[in-house]
Amino acid sequence: MSSAASKTTRVKADNIVAYMQDRGARARAAARGIARADTGTKNAALFALAQAIVDERKALLEANAQDLREGRANKLDESLLDRLELNDKRIEAMAEGVREVANLPDPVGEITDMKLRPSGIQVGRMRVPLGVVGIIYESRPNVTADAAALCLKSGNAAILRGGSEALRSNLAIARCLERALTDAGLSRDVVQVLDNTDRRAVSEMVAMPQYVDVIIPRGGKGLVAAVSQAARVPVIKHLDGICHVYIDAEADLEKAVAVAVNAKTQRYGTCNTMETLLVDQAIAARVLPTLAEIYTEAGVELRGCEATRKILLEAKPASEEDWHTEYLAPILSIRVVSGLDQAIDHIETYGSHHTDAIVSENYTKIRRFLREVDSSSVMVNASTRFADGYEYGLGAEIGISTDKFHARGPVGLEGLTSLKWVVLGDGSVR
Amino acid sequence: MSSAASKTTRVKADNIVAYMQDRGARARAAARGIARADTGTKNAALFALAQAIVDERKALLEANAQDLREGRANKLDESLLDRLELNDKRIEAMAEGVREVANLPDPVGEITDMKLRPSGIQVGRMRVPLGVVGIIYESRPNVTADAAALCLKSGNAAILRGGSEALRSNLAIARCLERALTDAGLSRDVVQVLDNTDRRAVSEMVAMPQYVDVIIPRGGKGLVAAVSQAARVPVIKHLDGICHVYIDAEADLEKAVAVAVNAKTQRYGTCNTMETLLVDQAIAARVLPTLAEIYTEAGVELRGCEATRKILLEAKPASEEDWHTEYLAPILSIRVVSGLDQAIDHIETYGSHHTDAIVSENYTKIRRFLREVDSSSVMVNASTRFADGYEYGLGAEIGISTDKFHARGPVGLEGLTSLKWVVLGDGSVR
Repeated sequence: MSSAASKTTRVKADNIVAYMQDRGARARAAARGIARADTGTKNAALFALAQAIVDERKALLEANAQDLREGRANKLDESLLDRLELNDKRIEAMAEGVREVANLPDPVGEITDMKLRPSGIQVGRMRVPLGVVGIIYESRPNVTADAAALCLKSGNAAILRGGSEALRSNLAIARCLERALTDAGLSRDVVQVLDNTDRRAVSEMVAMPQYVDVIIPRGGKGLVAAVSQAARVPVIKHLDGICHVYIDAEADLEKAVAVAVNAKTQRYGTCNTMETLLVDQAIAARVLPTLAEIYTEAGVELRGCEATRKILLEAKPASEEDWHTEYLAPILSIRVVSGLDQAIDHIETYGSHHTDAIVSENYTKIRRFLREVDSSSVMVNASTRFADGYEYGLGAEIGISTDKFHARGPVGLEGLTSLKWVVLGDGSVR
Repeated sequence: MSSAASKTTRVKADNIVAYMQDRGARARAAARGIARADTGTKNAALFALAQAIVDERKALLEANAQDLREGRANKLDESLLDRLELNDKRIEAMAEGVREVANLPDPVGEITDMKLRPSGIQVGRMRVPLGVVGIIYESRPNVTADAAALCLKSGNAAILRGGSEALRSNLAIARCLERALTDAGLSRDVVQVLDNTDRRAVSEMVAMPQYVDVIIPRGGKGLVAAVSQAARVPVIKHLDGICHVYIDAEADLEKAVAVAVNAKTQRYGTCNTMETLLVDQAIAARVLPTLAEIYTEAGVELRGCEATRKILLEAKPASEEDWHTEYLAPILSIRVVSGLDQAIDHIETYGSHHTDAIVSENYTKIRRFLREVDSSSVMVNASTRFADGYEYGLGAEIGISTDKFHARGPVGLEGLTSLKWVVLGDGSVR
């Protein structure tokens, strides 16, 4: 750990509680201002942030180089160092991401469904910010700018707590943020980047319902599970992505191959990548050999049930464990099923309610699949890889929720808001 | 405690864990069936429940009489005994409430906003049940039927845990439920009424995220706070209702009087009753005397700030404590404010974000009030007493949320659902 970081962490627990309470109180106070800020002011802050990031490129790279040096000295994992690294291209992408958020429509203040009631009142709903959003993340410094932009645009105050390995990079971005907020006439407390990387700060932050309205952990399963376990406030969380494609007996073979190949091979490490392929027994012998050839060419290891292995001699046997596994790797498990019911049963038993697709031309089976598969995204004749905020038209996503409460699937600006009731009367009484 | 109740509570903690795990697992299994059940089947079960309640009137009254006898022997509070009591009228109202839920539109399966994306996919959302809803409540046996009906109609499985004082009444209603579910061909586990009134069953129930998707505590502040504190799953909760009416300088005096009188005096013990009246200094001398006369006539005790007491000599002085207090009684605190800003400041400082109203004819001030007051219901020229599921057209409410996450204000069938993503493609790939 760096000397700068360790200095801040060598404080007493009491001090950490006081530190977080102070940050929380400041966020709560700032939330009121940003909730009422008009769209123009918020956009001005966002464009100023993008500009500051570009202007401060050198300072960002220097801070990041120090983080990287220390990370290497601390023998951090290569993949973690890669995520940590900033370069000119990534800095430009970060600024562009902020500009894109500025260009999204403002969700706050939208009034819908104003209906007249028999009593004479008119009732509808207005979209409003959640209040204070706490984000806990690892390594990638661009999350600092991304998350700040999404919270700000949706009228929320934010407390951002990045990993200790990226502290200097994050604080350099924090300076850009401060400049942008101040330039736009907003409180610098609207987005606070924590300079205390003590783990106890996180435990405190997720247990302050008086100051924090929702926590979004962005990182590995370990982080998400730990945060959810400790949280005393609502959490928008993403756990497993065990996604399935089911090729129905009445699938168009060309579409089936296109979807099943893309869902597995377009990228291996993403949560919306297919991990298990389900194939109706009536079509298995026709479609599996074609697919196996393409998968093998791409270097995907195949693991199959008994029926699969009768068709694909090269497939290894799949164990019960395989159906439960999110490989995040070029490995695919394949199961031949007796039909739609067994496919849905398999998905509901082994899936993670993330994203599941059917390939079929049969109207009735498609309707059943859409209704009965309880996943945050259900798809027809489309690759599971589409489960993404940009692809869905949200513009950007703060995360993907595998929960059912509040928001499911990709969470954009709307997921950072809720609806309050608006009642218009004319001296109306009950 | 009754011998029947104490028998079930004299079990070891291990047994209670096993008991709740079993109930949870059964609810999770039943959730899948009820989520896919068609509207006709759900309505058939609801009408059968209403009929069973009417048919079993005698058995319900007998079970309730036993609860009441024991409650009196245990020296329960009179108001609690009143809430506990069933009679012919209340039984008919309970059956009618269930029929009303049957007659509401089914929220499940509704598909909205199917938009075409540049990639060629079409993306929208489908309303789906949350899964398993746990309800924890006190005394009123009608909650058993109400909550069961709302959960069933919204496609959720439910675990209902009433108070020990109402155990026999609740189990008698549970028998009606079981008959209705079975008659409609649904699993009896769709709605489970717990027969174990050990407090540890509650602690276990609110900490089983694998089996329970949301907890709704319905009862006093003590119950709600205790449940929220212990919960490991999302909670839809209702805490304070410190509601305000602000009479602006540009208020229509007739409307101001109508709204301010109704908001306070229509009922005293409800959460949407006004507790503090804010009056612009420019209009205070004109409106307060008229109001004070009506309040005094109605037996409402007035407590005012200094400026109020210069106009209303009879008003007692209001302390800082008064602005924080939900009286739930014929007491009203009154504060004269310098204008809209101070009114909003007061509401944001002392209010509970429940329901707040402005009385004004000024367009700009009304718009600011609606936008800047962060309450679950914001009203213009209407009594705060309108904050209610029936008045808003929800048909019925499972509760009122003072949280911002997921649902704010009156929560009806829609609040028991969430939206999943639906993606339609044509062999679409990324």
